[in-house]
Amino acid sequence: MASPGSTISQASVSESNRSRILSHLYHHGVSSRAQIAKALDLTPAAITKITAHLIDGGLIAESQQTEANRRGRPIGLRLDKGRFHVVGVKFARSLVQIGVFDLAGKRISLHELPTVDESTIQRTIHLIHQQIEELLAGDRLIIAIGMAVPGPYLRTVGRTALVSSMQGWRRINLIREFGRSFSVPVFIEQDARAGALAEHLFSQGLKSQNMAYYLLGEGIGLGVVDQGRLVNGALGAASELGHISIDINGRPCDCGNLGCLEGYCSAIAVHQLIADRQLVPGAQAMTHRQACQALFDQAAAGDAPSLQAVKEIGRYVGYGCVTIINAFNPERIVIGDIVSAAGKPLLRAIQDVVDERVIPELNDSTSISLSCLPTDAIISGAAAVAITQFLNHPSLFARGDLSSGPPSHSSTSHSKQPAEQYQQQ
Amino acid sequence: MASPGSTISQASVSESNRSRILSHLYHHGVSSRAQIAKALDLTPAAITKITAHLIDGGLIAESQQTEANRRGRPIGLRLDKGRFHVVGVKFARSLVQIGVFDLAGKRISLHELPTVDESTIQRTIHLIHQQIEELLAGDRLIIAIGMAVPGPYLRTVGRTALVSSMQGWRRINLIREFGRSFSVPVFIEQDARAGALAEHLFSQGLKSQNMAYYLLGEGIGLGVVDQGRLVNGALGAASELGHISIDINGRPCDCGNLGCLEGYCSAIAVHQLIADRQLVPGAQAMTHRQACQALFDQAAAGDAPSLQAVKEIGRYVGYGCVTIINAFNPERIVIGDIVSAAGKPLLRAIQDVVDERVIPELNDSTSISLSCLPTDAIISGAAAVAITQFLNHPSLFARGDLSSGPPSHSSTSHSKQPAEQYQQQ
Repeated sequence: MASPGSTISQASVSESNRSRILSHLYHHGVSSRAQIAKALDLTPAAITKITAHLIDGGLIAESQQTEANRRGRPIGLRLDKGRFHVVGVKFARSLVQIGVFDLAGKRISLHELPTVDESTIQRTIHLIHQQIEELLAGDRLIIAIGMAVPGPYLRTVGRTALVSSMQGWRRINLIREFGRSFSVPVFIEQDARAGALAEHLFSQGLKSQNMAYYLLGEGIGLGVVDQGRLVNGALGAASELGHISIDINGRPCDCGNLGCLEGYCSAIAVHQLIADRQLVPGAQAMTHRQACQALFDQAAAGDAPSLQAVKEIGRYVGYGCVTIINAFNPERIVIGDIVSAAGKPLLRAIQDVVDERVIPELNDSTSISLSCLPTDAIISGAAAVAITQFLNHPSLFARGDLSSGPPSHSSTSHSKQPAEQYQQQ
Repeated sequence: MASPGSTISQASVSESNRSRILSHLYHHGVSSRAQIAKALDLTPAAITKITAHLIDGGLIAESQQTEANRRGRPIGLRLDKGRFHVVGVKFARSLVQIGVFDLAGKRISLHELPTVDESTIQRTIHLIHQQIEELLAGDRLIIAIGMAVPGPYLRTVGRTALVSSMQGWRRINLIREFGRSFSVPVFIEQDARAGALAEHLFSQGLKSQNMAYYLLGEGIGLGVVDQGRLVNGALGAASELGHISIDINGRPCDCGNLGCLEGYCSAIAVHQLIADRQLVPGAQAMTHRQACQALFDQAAAGDAPSLQAVKEIGRYVGYGCVTIINAFNPERIVIGDIVSAAGKPLLRAIQDVVDERVIPELNDSTSISLSCLPTDAIISGAAAVAITQFLNHPSLFARGDLSSGPPSHSSTSHSKQPAEQYQQQ
């Protein structure tokens, strides 16, 4: 279905054609103008004009080599993925990580900040500012910052509407705090949606236009790519799986709902279960991640009560998968973050629930697997958020003005801070 | 997010430009070539070529009048919504309706078939064939047939995976049964998604790019428009709200899941509640719709037990709204079909649950209302399915070949039956 009723402005369509060319080069490597013209059904004249602007804007370059002809006769165009870096920031309640990545998603550096609690949120924000400034000062290739934050994140507002078990984050307006602080633009997205973008942009093979990234961290999150595009919602707060109830008379949640999935199989819920059953010695003093990992290690070593706990947790994760399949019918569900480290016994318990409760036709056509991205999907996801904006909105990152008049080399991307950038997809 | 990784073929982009022009004329009325060129950022040469093909193909025509200049100087183009008709067929377990509509969604005729039960499914299918043949023979303006069927409908397969409480429909492969039976193409979509298309295409004012149509019929369905496009899923079986569990230990459902929403507030569940509590005299002999309507009439007349029942049903409908908001974050939820006829007391109970259980920021930005389409949204939806295909795939409906060589007038749209038509959006 096209977008009936929406008027597409001339400027946005021009930007859309620039974006399509840039994305083509991102995904297909070196290509000749003729190959691009053919693939995107643009006239040679349009291609010549748009690519000249992209070259003058410093985003792409001429290359002697094409995939079709390695002897270098026809002059090709390329987007050098190593020539641009992005900063990815992962917020995960008590954990904050900051990484630098190239456009291919290759990690160049990673810093982890001290564990955060309610009393150290302000200090943590100060540290994030400081570290990003240092990174920007030391690496002129950085063109953007992507941030991945717990949901429900109100993207149009800039604030997380709720962070179960760490309400202090709610008071932070991320757009106000970080939006205009740096010399490069900042883009913010809910964590699991960022993870879905990372799986979609970076995972080798297994490309799917219909996939879901199911995040089992300190919260439960979900990002869904449907027909190649993130399911968004009016405020950018769609696919909040963690707050979908699995029991309308169940455990009360901070969000006001009862029986939220998050209350049963997030890392925090698992830590609580460990404490209640005294499964891991010294668990009280551990971080959520440490406690979960200790439980999973015990289960892998054959400890029966630990294995039983993993199976119970897996059933709850499985109920979430049943909901994902009924709500979004993805081809693939990729499960990642802290609780996914329980590995095979968890996956088996998940699959058992799905086999019991999903219509066979839908079950047969849905694969469920654990994430195999080289690094944590959310920090990669934060980078993917920035890279997706680079591909979708080239004019924000080019030298000069791509759309009108002769391209100028006087300004750099670092000076661009359009007001609506945070709301753009 | 653009569709990274997907290669767009030249033919599909040409069709996409034809579709954009046709959709522009559908939504904006008479427009000059210059207005279209500006709105869609296409070159005058491209507009001239594409519109010439659309005129030769018989889809649009020259018009002396433009919206901008009513004196008729610049020659405009128009899509005459009255010149094309579509047939809409609504399947709803025991109810089958067949209507004829014009492209504006105006109803021209409506037939209702005798109530269907397991033993009369085959006879009903025969009747549908017969009635559509009669309509086609009597109305040469009919260009397509749209069908709306209960979900989970596997669009790529052509079969409903499950029809709670009328399993006989499952054995019918709708594509095989109807796909090539007629002289015009047939398009099939899940009922609530068809309803969402109808609300999106035909409802006056209140246009939203993020809306949900929540169907309370013999089954529970949901269709979600996100960023102007239906949320689809890999098999076209997304947004199956009726089978999302609200209680993982709840009532068993035919689908294999426990606690499916459908088991608590579909018209069938309401009829069961009426029977259990003996709320309506003679309810056993009534259709589901009649029994529900009798209950709602009693409630409106002040009968306390009936009003209490409506409130209880409304709470369950409300739990569904809470799930819709967390899963899809629409701007509007429009509630339609049998159970929505309970009206204000139902809506009040729904809103109470949503107020209790949804995060305030999301609640504040979501409106919930009862459908106010002039006719039943699902039969209009069946028409909307066909009209959406007309707008998205003009070449299926044009005389001759729109894409290559000089347009020919030798063949008519009635001879076109492309194999993949059922899977196209």
